Amino acid sequence: MNKYGIGLIGCGTVGSGLIRNLAKANPLLRERLDIHLEIVAAAVKDITKVRDGLPVKPIADWRKVIADPAVQIVVELVGGVDDSFQIAQTCLKAGKPLVTANKALLAERGHELIAQAHQSNAPIYFEASVAGGIPVIKVLREGLVANQLLGLHGIINGTSNYILTRMAEAGSDFATALQQAKDLGYAEADDRLDVDGIDAAHKAAILCLLAYGFLPKFSEVPVEGIRKISSQDVSFAAQLGYTIKLLALVRPHGSDQVEVRVAPTLLPNRHPMASVHGAFNAIGLLGNLSGPVQLTGRGAGPDATSSALLADLAEAAKNLRDKSPGPQIPQPDGKLRLLQKGESVGRFYVRLEVEDRPGVLALVAGIFGSEKIGISSVLQPEGHGAGSVPLVFLLEAASESSLEKAVAQITKLPNSRSPAHILRVEDLS
Amino acid sequence: MNKYGIGLIGCGTVGSGLIRNLAKANPLLRERLDIHLEIVAAAVKDITKVRDGLPVKPIADWRKVIADPAVQIVVELVGGVDDSFQIAQTCLKAGKPLVTANKALLAERGHELIAQAHQSNAPIYFEASVAGGIPVIKVLREGLVANQLLGLHGIINGTSNYILTRMAEAGSDFATALQQAKDLGYAEADDRLDVDGIDAAHKAAILCLLAYGFLPKFSEVPVEGIRKISSQDVSFAAQLGYTIKLLALVRPHGSDQVEVRVAPTLLPNRHPMASVHGAFNAIGLLGNLSGPVQLTGRGAGPDATSSALLADLAEAAKNLRDKSPGPQIPQPDGKLRLLQKGESVGRFYVRLEVEDRPGVLALVAGIFGSEKIGISSVLQPEGHGAGSVPLVFLLEAASESSLEKAVAQITKLPNSRSPAHILRVEDLS
Repeated sequence: MNKYGIGLIGCGTVGSGLIRNLAKANPLLRERLDIHLEIVAAAVKDITKVRDGLPVKPIADWRKVIADPAVQIVVELVGGVDDSFQIAQTCLKAGKPLVTANKALLAERGHELIAQAHQSNAPIYFEASVAGGIPVIKVLREGLVANQLLGLHGIINGTSNYILTRMAEAGSDFATALQQAKDLGYAEADDRLDVDGIDAAHKAAILCLLAYGFLPKFSEVPVEGIRKISSQDVSFAAQLGYTIKLLALVRPHGSDQVEVRVAPTLLPNRHPMASVHGAFNAIGLLGNLSGPVQLTGRGAGPDATSSALLADLAEAAKNLRDKSPGPQIPQPDGKLRLLQKGESVGRFYVRLEVEDRPGVLALVAGIFGSEKIGISSVLQPEGHGAGSVPLVFLLEAASESSLEKAVAQITKLPNSRSPAHILRVEDLS
Repeated sequence: MNKYGIGLIGCGTVGSGLIRNLAKANPLLRERLDIHLEIVAAAVKDITKVRDGLPVKPIADWRKVIADPAVQIVVELVGGVDDSFQIAQTCLKAGKPLVTANKALLAERGHELIAQAHQSNAPIYFEASVAGGIPVIKVLREGLVANQLLGLHGIINGTSNYILTRMAEAGSDFATALQQAKDLGYAEADDRLDVDGIDAAHKAAILCLLAYGFLPKFSEVPVEGIRKISSQDVSFAAQLGYTIKLLALVRPHGSDQVEVRVAPTLLPNRHPMASVHGAFNAIGLLGNLSGPVQLTGRGAGPDATSSALLADLAEAAKNLRDKSPGPQIPQPDGKLRLLQKGESVGRFYVRLEVEDRPGVLALVAGIFGSEKIGISSVLQPEGHGAGSVPLVFLLEAASESSLEKAVAQITKLPNSRSPAHILRVEDLS
């Protein structure tokens, strides 16, 4: 039997889950791969805290863990971007394989790490960084290796999906649904990464890197979260036959541009992605040969994340055993650029609040017409008595810039009562 | 760049698709893995037939293809069980990696091939044998390698799913829907493998092998097809909130038994598997760590199958490059046995045709009660005037043997007008 020494750096919820599940998994890994994984060193911030099941005495200095000759594979679970970057870089420089669940690290400093990995000939394994329970990295990198990816999209933040599901099913408003997510442990006290779309954008950037060999400059990725979604939008979308999801989308345009964005998006109810409920994640991949593939499962939680970390550890060990170089991350070649905001063409949902008097609908519709934007449906509920009514448009495909022009004109109308609420619509045929 | 010589044996629809798609995929494989695949020898039945894009002159004798020193990987695409077994065995004996799309071969003669593969230290790659466009073999074997599988189920025959979808959506009867499937090229002239559940059972056996290291004796696997499904059943199921799917199911019972079966099954409409429509396939895997994972995509067609074959070829080439032994198929250890018919416990749908007179419902319900089978819903539409009425029961969990006893008693009632129609119900929570 082949034994492999693991160095664990960071031991919060995910790390504790890994320790617990490693004990369960070892008999299976032995049977299936003739591999035994053993944590032989660990570094944590607070060395006085007791960690159940950790077979070694943790130390504070992670450099010693990486340098330990018994450590053959390093698992980085400290999170964040700064310390974890130092850890990852040191690990790769030492020529040791790195296993990480850190999406922010890869999305924001992936360029440097990939260069380091190539230079040191050390692999990075990061299945746990995107949609823990779903082996999407492996599917993208290996299962669909012979496919040109025509696009991908996903619901890759469980917290937001839980909140949107509550809003749709229970009619809750955003604040109530967010509180429920917090009460159930689906949302962190600091909810910004999840609710404002940043976590989903980190994952989208990683998927983009694998699909297109292109890691966008993270600060330039257009990201919108779900804080602005009202229960009114959820209900209007439902009346139009759509469900609102926080959708991450990666799509090539021509041979030199890639669209990457995260935004709350109306999906037709009949699309399989529209029925991915609660904290579940789903990723749709469109291969030129495979056709559409959808993977659905748990995106987070210590067990689902352990499933991914252990698969990576097993693969890292197997590659060490076989003296195989391990998976190569494509080195971005600089030919591709991010589709700029305004260049994007798509369908939109526009909710207005206008003066409740005859002729206003015609006025607004006329402005869309003058910008050559077709209207595919309109919804105007009965006025609610305050002298104003909501007016909801589902538009045909239009460029973001012509939409903006139209909306600016509409906003300037004396009949306009509040700023327009604009959401993306994707048919994902 | 690393070039690998492929020996192609068999060149029907799938083989022609592979030839065409190999040309498209090579630039991607070069970029992603620094690998170039080249067909250097081919054997076909009819050597006079022109094959577009085949870069070599095909020969009739497949043994020469395997023996050709330029051939490093053999692709077997002849189908069937007898010739393909000879080919596979000869290939493995020669120590060459085998890539196959042949589910019948693996399900029916896998024991011998696995033994040969272990003896010769030659790997078998068979991603294309189950649900072509969906990399389920890789997900099961590698992505979920650290998971104990608590069960798996799937819609893994596209033809049957197309037929059942037509029956549900257009209200067609079985014969009409089958004819449509044939007209569209979804069903073969000989429809038995698809429609009678055998193809799905072949795939279920392969999934069982990977999940549990147990390959059931194929002739003992309980298999029911969809020929017996009437449009009445489809409509009654819908009224009860269910959809009928040809479901393959693999589930461990205790430590020594595995249930493997294929049967038309009622699934609750809210389950994601119920909305897998048309010729699409889906597989649900329940890992103890990952939680439920569902993979949906195209199961068949030359392109989707090429996606899987090319992924296997790329992996075989990569393993040759790295001198890595390649994936090991678990060698069945004989501890497990197939759950016998009658031992299975489940929920059932029972449709009866009974005399239209007061008291009959009570009589039938009394028989279920005497066998301790709970009734979860009953449907009795208005009589259709012929003196008899359908009577539909959705039952609580019961053993197959007690159900059979109850149904035998019901059939003997003088009020019984035709044999009972029995279908499985799975909640797949």
